[in-house]
Amino acid sequence: MRTDLFSAAQLLKQAEDVYILCHRHPDGDTLGSGFALKHALAALGKRTRLLCSDEIPEKYARFMMTPETREYFPPQFVVAVDIADLQLLGEELQTYRDRIDLCIDHHPSNTGYARHTVVDPTAAATAELIFDLIGLLGVQLDSCMADCIYAGLSTDTGGFRFSNTTARTHRIAASVIDAGADHTAINYQLLEVKSLQRMEVERRVLNSLAYYFDNRVAVLCITQQMLRETGAREDELDGIAALPRRIAGVQVGVTLREQPDGSYKVSLRTNEGVDASQVCSQLGGGGHARAAGCNLKMEQDAAVQAILQTLRPYLEQIPDNKE
Amino acid sequence: MRTDLFSAAQLLKQAEDVYILCHRHPDGDTLGSGFALKHALAALGKRTRLLCSDEIPEKYARFMMTPETREYFPPQFVVAVDIADLQLLGEELQTYRDRIDLCIDHHPSNTGYARHTVVDPTAAATAELIFDLIGLLGVQLDSCMADCIYAGLSTDTGGFRFSNTTARTHRIAASVIDAGADHTAINYQLLEVKSLQRMEVERRVLNSLAYYFDNRVAVLCITQQMLRETGAREDELDGIAALPRRIAGVQVGVTLREQPDGSYKVSLRTNEGVDASQVCSQLGGGGHARAAGCNLKMEQDAAVQAILQTLRPYLEQIPDNKE
Repeated sequence: MRTDLFSAAQLLKQAEDVYILCHRHPDGDTLGSGFALKHALAALGKRTRLLCSDEIPEKYARFMMTPETREYFPPQFVVAVDIADLQLLGEELQTYRDRIDLCIDHHPSNTGYARHTVVDPTAAATAELIFDLIGLLGVQLDSCMADCIYAGLSTDTGGFRFSNTTARTHRIAASVIDAGADHTAINYQLLEVKSLQRMEVERRVLNSLAYYFDNRVAVLCITQQMLRETGAREDELDGIAALPRRIAGVQVGVTLREQPDGSYKVSLRTNEGVDASQVCSQLGGGGHARAAGCNLKMEQDAAVQAILQTLRPYLEQIPDNKE
Repeated sequence: MRTDLFSAAQLLKQAEDVYILCHRHPDGDTLGSGFALKHALAALGKRTRLLCSDEIPEKYARFMMTPETREYFPPQFVVAVDIADLQLLGEELQTYRDRIDLCIDHHPSNTGYARHTVVDPTAAATAELIFDLIGLLGVQLDSCMADCIYAGLSTDTGGFRFSNTTARTHRIAASVIDAGADHTAINYQLLEVKSLQRMEVERRVLNSLAYYFDNRVAVLCITQQMLRETGAREDELDGIAALPRRIAGVQVGVTLREQPDGSYKVSLRTNEGVDASQVCSQLGGGGHARAAGCNLKMEQDAAVQAILQTLRPYLEQIPDNKE
């Protein structure tokens, strides 16, 4: 049943022994939202636990988590935050799939699996909704809750750069900074700093950068060898697919990622003009207009040629947008 | 004479035929502040001109400038925005040095060269002050003024990431987004996009990346050959000196820039613990605690060794902050 934040606050005020669920492969928004809510409910004297199928990365844990006694209690009320569908619970949390009382989310694709669901797709981050919810709970924001909310806003908007950012996002950022959010340190830790392994992968990946069609197409390649040589983990490759699109004049950015079986996972990012989803569907894949993908079981050179051949007619239909 | 924004607004209301001066090597804040003020004064029916010693880069001009008739008129009132001292006027604008009626600035080092000076060092950008000033002038913010203000905020705070960012910065960002600022496009153009030449320099520079002292020191080198090979301009190297400090565990980032005469301009960025200014003064240079520089007239290898030798005792005094 769809409901609003006011009713959600009423439900939470009456709830005891609350479990808060975050989505698998947790990011700044699901964790920031979950921990801010956890701390707010704790301030109301409730017992709370936060659960996630995957380990909580140290970069979030260090400022979101507070010391607590790990006494076990069974849940009487279960809340899911930033989880669009039940699959995103991950394996460990499937046990709660039929007993989620409340879901707070901002994904338009939310499947409405919970007893009560608050979805606001105009929110840039679920953390925006949690900020309002904490106000409705009558809890004063402390600096730890402020840090958590800020982390959610900042990571889900790419540091206030993505098009989902609104005036409301900035107003909430202002409020949590007033409440003591350590915004500079959070941005540095979550947006700026790169592991040495990531830096080394990036160096190698940049060396693979090749331009085609008068620099309108840029192609990057991440090989298994690069991962072996640098020791970089999969999650340290985040954002590399966005690199080619940042080059002025590049209309199509292509990233090839070699899989352990030697095939290539292809990711296509396009600016206005080329429909990435159409291109990828011709190669057996699919996706969105500006970001799509496909899998190619062939050698690297053959894969690049296949993509370029498929792209050619699309590029011929649109103007070169060099300045 | 120091004054406040309210008095500045009174002066501007009475002024006619206003020249607005921006600093040389113009950035998003001096131009965003200058053009927002220009458009606001034009909305009050005043004749205005904006002057800068250097050419206004296309990335700013395209959204800040509006078409206008270029009829000449002599200035009756001269305003300087975001200009801390007269030297920053550049050569072309020295002719106005003794007749600046009003200066609006946020640099604590402002020398007070104008007849009336408004300096607020708590403002992250001069654009924050111009936003307030436009309100005091009774002018309704249009979307072009909003774009200009946003550009000033965003560039002077590195996209709301630097420690100068405050709740006020975010509140003004919210207001200018409400007034129609095209924030996503501005951030993409001013913070994200890189010229192909810059990308190529970055690739070569990353290949020069070397680590010392158990990865606590990272050294980058930009040679004349790299610039020749890529055709990158000096202003396309912005931000490269900040790269090493973004690597986790790196406490000191060193960037060497080969000069046309073969000497090296060294820039040192440090995290807490190492005083960059002390290190550089031992090598004949100086600067701030976290960012300093010096010039070394020697071969590249010798320059790197000289820096490492000077750094050693400092590193021995502080703990390795690896996680």
